[in-house]
Amino acid sequence: MYNFRTDLADERNEIYRKANKMESNIPGIETEEEPVNESIKVTRVKITNEEAQKAIGKPIGTYITIDVKNIKIAREEEIQKASEVLTKELKEMLGKHVQAKDDILVVGLGNIYVTPDALGPKVINEIDVTRHLIHYLPQYVDENTRPVSAVSPGVLGTTGIETMEILKGIIDNIKPKLVIVIDSLASRSMERISSTIQLADTGIVPGAGVGNTRKELSEATLGIPVIALGIPTVVETAVVVNDCLDVFISKLQEEAKSNDYLNQLKEEDNYEEIKESLMPKELNFIVTPKEIDTLIENMKDIVARGINFAL
Amino acid sequence: MYNFRTDLADERNEIYRKANKMESNIPGIETEEEPVNESIKVTRVKITNEEAQKAIGKPIGTYITIDVKNIKIAREEEIQKASEVLTKELKEMLGKHVQAKDDILVVGLGNIYVTPDALGPKVINEIDVTRHLIHYLPQYVDENTRPVSAVSPGVLGTTGIETMEILKGIIDNIKPKLVIVIDSLASRSMERISSTIQLADTGIVPGAGVGNTRKELSEATLGIPVIALGIPTVVETAVVVNDCLDVFISKLQEEAKSNDYLNQLKEEDNYEEIKESLMPKELNFIVTPKEIDTLIENMKDIVARGINFAL
Amino acid sequence: MYNFRTDLADERNEIYRKANKMESNIPGIETEEEPVNESIKVTRVKITNEEAQKAIGKPIGTYITIDVKNIKIAREEEIQKASEVLTKELKEMLGKHVQAKDDILVVGLGNIYVTPDALGPKVINEIDVTRHLIHYLPQYVDENTRPVSAVSPGVLGTTGIETMEILKGIIDNIKPKLVIVIDSLASRSMERISSTIQLADTGIVPGAGVGNTRKELSEATLGIPVIALGIPTVVETAVVVNDCLDVFISKLQEEAKSNDYLNQLKEEDNYEEIKESLMPKELNFIVTPKEIDTLIENMKDIVARGINFAL
Amino acid sequence: MYNFRTDLADERNEIYRKANKMESNIPGIETEEEPVNESIKVTRVKITNEEAQKAIGKPIGTYITIDVKNIKIAREEEIQKASEVLTKELKEMLGKHVQAKDDILVVGLGNIYVTPDALGPKVINEIDVTRHLIHYLPQYVDENTRPVSAVSPGVLGTTGIETMEILKGIIDNIKPKLVIVIDSLASRSMERISSTIQLADTGIVPGAGVGNTRKELSEATLGIPVIALGIPTVVETAVVVNDCLDVFISKLQEEAKSNDYLNQLKEEDNYEEIKESLMPKELNFIVTPKEIDTLIENMKDIVARGINFAL
Repeated sequence: MYNFRTDLADERNEIYRKANKMESNIPGIETEEEPVNESIKVTRVKITNEEAQKAIGKPIGTYITIDVKNIKIAREEEIQKASEVLTKELKEMLGKHVQAKDDILVVGLGNIYVTPDALGPKVINEIDVTRHLIHYLPQYVDENTRPVSAVSPGVLGTTGIETMEILKGIIDNIKPKLVIVIDSLASRSMERISSTIQLADTGIVPGAGVGNTRKELSEATLGIPVIALGIPTVVETAVVVNDCLDVFISKLQEEAKSNDYLNQLKEEDNYEEIKESLMPKELNFIVTPKEIDTLIENMKDIVARGINFAL
Repeated sequence: MYNFRTDLADERNEIYRKANKMESNIPGIETEEEPVNESIKVTRVKITNEEAQKAIGKPIGTYITIDVKNIKIAREEEIQKASEVLTKELKEMLGKHVQAKDDILVVGLGNIYVTPDALGPKVINEIDVTRHLIHYLPQYVDENTRPVSAVSPGVLGTTGIETMEILKGIIDNIKPKLVIVIDSLASRSMERISSTIQLADTGIVPGAGVGNTRKELSEATLGIPVIALGIPTVVETAVVVNDCLDVFISKLQEEAKSNDYLNQLKEEDNYEEIKESLMPKELNFIVTPKEIDTLIENMKDIVARGINFAL
Repeated sequence: MYNFRTDLADERNEIYRKANKMESNIPGIETEEEPVNESIKVTRVKITNEEAQKAIGKPIGTYITIDVKNIKIAREEEIQKASEVLTKELKEMLGKHVQAKDDILVVGLGNIYVTPDALGPKVINEIDVTRHLIHYLPQYVDENTRPVSAVSPGVLGTTGIETMEILKGIIDNIKPKLVIVIDSLASRSMERISSTIQLADTGIVPGAGVGNTRKELSEATLGIPVIALGIPTVVETAVVVNDCLDVFISKLQEEAKSNDYLNQLKEEDNYEEIKESLMPKELNFIVTPKEIDTLIENMKDIVARGINFAL
Repeated sequence: MYNFRTDLADERNEIYRKANKMESNIPGIETEEEPVNESIKVTRVKITNEEAQKAIGKPIGTYITIDVKNIKIAREEEIQKASEVLTKELKEMLGKHVQAKDDILVVGLGNIYVTPDALGPKVINEIDVTRHLIHYLPQYVDENTRPVSAVSPGVLGTTGIETMEILKGIIDNIKPKLVIVIDSLASRSMERISSTIQLADTGIVPGAGVGNTRKELSEATLGIPVIALGIPTVVETAVVVNDCLDVFISKLQEEAKSNDYLNQLKEEDNYEEIKESLMPKELNFIVTPKEIDTLIENMKDIVARGINFAL
């Protein structure tokens, strides 16, 4: 399969079309864009058959992308609005898989001690959990309250245990009807860092974006539906260089300074060659914008509120 | 049972003897003190029969207390020395329950976002885990390496799930031979806050010290031996007031200002009455010294190093 | 002077009246209570002559106390409401000393690395500063914008420099017309920890509450008006014990278990004796509630918003 | 002047020589390399005349660079060794400007809330200050103790005040004999992020590396010698792309896939063109490696210890 270097279905669809010089989607892929306001945009990608699944390497299912512009300087109202959009989309997706009072487990993947990886655990700290209240203090909770629990299982490097093994154990014991997994993704573009949320009902492969693949978290492995809520927080240097190279050659072309070879370079995807040239010199870093602390803090507020209101 | 308001076996033994005006330990309790140097002292309490177990409310087993003086201003050498004492005691206790290469799971209880409760999760972040290396990169690890994994399951209030349920699930899946549980305890004395470590091979009841009892973590509930490593980090106001009242009356007695009633007050334990008078006014806080951040940071270094070298 | 062990003018006035068994305020002290809603109350204490100043040990001036109940579990609306109350009171006080466009410097005292001392520096990080924009990017700011700057000078123990010396230097250089100083105070009661704001236009003596007095920050030392915004964050153990002793004796009295000596003990203030009995055993800790992280976080939001809207 | 995009004198000298295709240094620049061990290397650049100063845009003076390999996974011994190298170099440089007991002020520039900018304030928290002890508790300090103070003045964006104005005020008041300024720099290479220390006795222009120039901190503006201790913590995307482009073209050349145009591209410095093509699309981010938290933490230990032992 083509190496898309992104976990976002809409980025993959675009790359696929560009690589194959197609004007429209292939059969089996339906896309739809919905601008919410000046700074928020929702994109829906539906993958409906196996050819489409194979083409862009994402399982059959629905992928919703919410983009928030300028999240670094987002103010209270913008954060609130973005969280409302997430609530609406998440509610709709939940409605397809579970009943109103079905037990839900929210899982925040990542490492609280590494800023670009801390989003999942930070969100978990703000989830309004109710499962224990329903068990121990039923008199204090409305009888229509949905049991919600939340865990932050850590990462393989600090636990020594596959996330899937930890979650399997917990799910077997507490038997929720659905899992929402929050994870940091890799993206192809710096502008999307901590500014985009992808919702999908097809599960997730933690660490997939950074070539550090872990065991899949999905209905197939966990036995219950998995809604994945992924947010790009890092980019690989080779990806940045590849994209910037295109921008740079475009500029040379505009200035008529280009040549056939460069034009061809731009048509092709040079990621693999760039990566190969950077790797031996250990230059292929995973990078993050300088302002990642603020970006993560604002996105945490959006995701935590979005989930709390949907549940 | 008497309310000891402490999870430390040696404090309980002292209180029991004082309350019953006994010069020596009751049969079934053996104690031993070993000063290591000017600032470190080790105390061993062995409970060997059911009467003793009943008397001080701690299961039959061995309780080792390591006290470190002035941990707030401890320097590198003192932290290193204290960690070596912990390594020695922990190694000996481990030797009684598992073989050199048996799989061990280290569990850090508590909430990373509440300073006096953050010790467990902070230690987990520094445990040298090896289980995943042995599985995925066996060529990089010495063949005698013990598989070590580490989790920080969160607290009921933020997860909605009993710690015991989370751990049961993980243990069923990864099948370690022994669990080491790190927990914050309540103590009777402010001087012991983040300055004392109690090692016990009898398991633990999380939150017991603060009247917020959770399901027991022990061989009975988890199916494998549990070594508990508890560190006092909070004190209840009623406990402080009760103890200070004694000190205060002592001073009045010295100055011959006391009277029969006060003398009797001091002989008795007034904790329950003090608690009852504070409760209706919501004055019975759980407190912590102002310097808790530094105390926790230094104790984290001692515990993490102590465990890493023992494993 | 009497040792009030509190920096709050209204606590001092109450203590003074109680100690002197007075039904009403002495001449020179005017008090006024204004409940804002169920959880917020404003108290105003005006000290108008030298006798009053001497009696309660606070300089002639106005002291406004804002109390917020249950701040630990405060929600967005309550935090917003409390910040509006602060804005209103602060605006009024500012109006008496400076014009609408006069330059203001906000100073956050305290140590960011010690949770109960971190409030000042945390607020500074959220102040909307404008002074540099007016200097460097005047085209981007409304012409009526007040120049606001903000510093967090650190504490003597980590800087080696008196806060007054640092501020004097900065004020001489940038010449603001007024200083707002945010400081952590000591209080007499645990319920007021990070739940009360005292506004005063008489300056401040940093560290006064905890017997660790620094050089005064006031118009006398800095040459411009100083509005002090103080928030209690710590209590001394001797203070807690003294207050709890009263509560405890009350209960004994109710149960007719008391005696003349105890009755008299309660009438007196035993703080000094209690302190003296605790000091030799190093038991006189400065304590803070276990939930101090959340308390500080919520109060930070109230103070930062309150100041930003007032300026 | 040429835009070097680096604050490191040795990088500038290399770039200058490469751009001018020179085999050796120009007159007025002396360089010297000294490997300390496998992972630490010291480079000395002396600029001795005005031509050299003009050529590489750094004032006449001495620039010492300490490079530490693999600081991300550095262990206690490596951190200790690196700090000893810093102590030695810093002591020597101090010896040229002040006497053994002369008063020194250590200044940590940067923003504690932005990880790649937090190094300065974090180091300040660990400096052993003595100035206040000498003033208030002379009986507790050795009579040969040098008065050391330390401040972290914040950044223009959160204070609204130029760092130079804050420091000028403090220095006028406390009158130290020398200032050591710790600052985060921009570098040209990702490998040097939080892995290199540059020591210079020529002062510093905060923010110079990221095109966000502030007022110079030097003997000329502050009136006393300024030793600058700079650590690269960020890189600009255009810099990364420019450097990677060279590596990429090298690879095409090796594979004989290159052409005259590309060969020429590589000879030139394309930074400005790349920047111009990225800017309109807002793609010219300031980036930092994903592991920046650990990198900063380890470098903080090296710098704090290095300074403490030198003073």
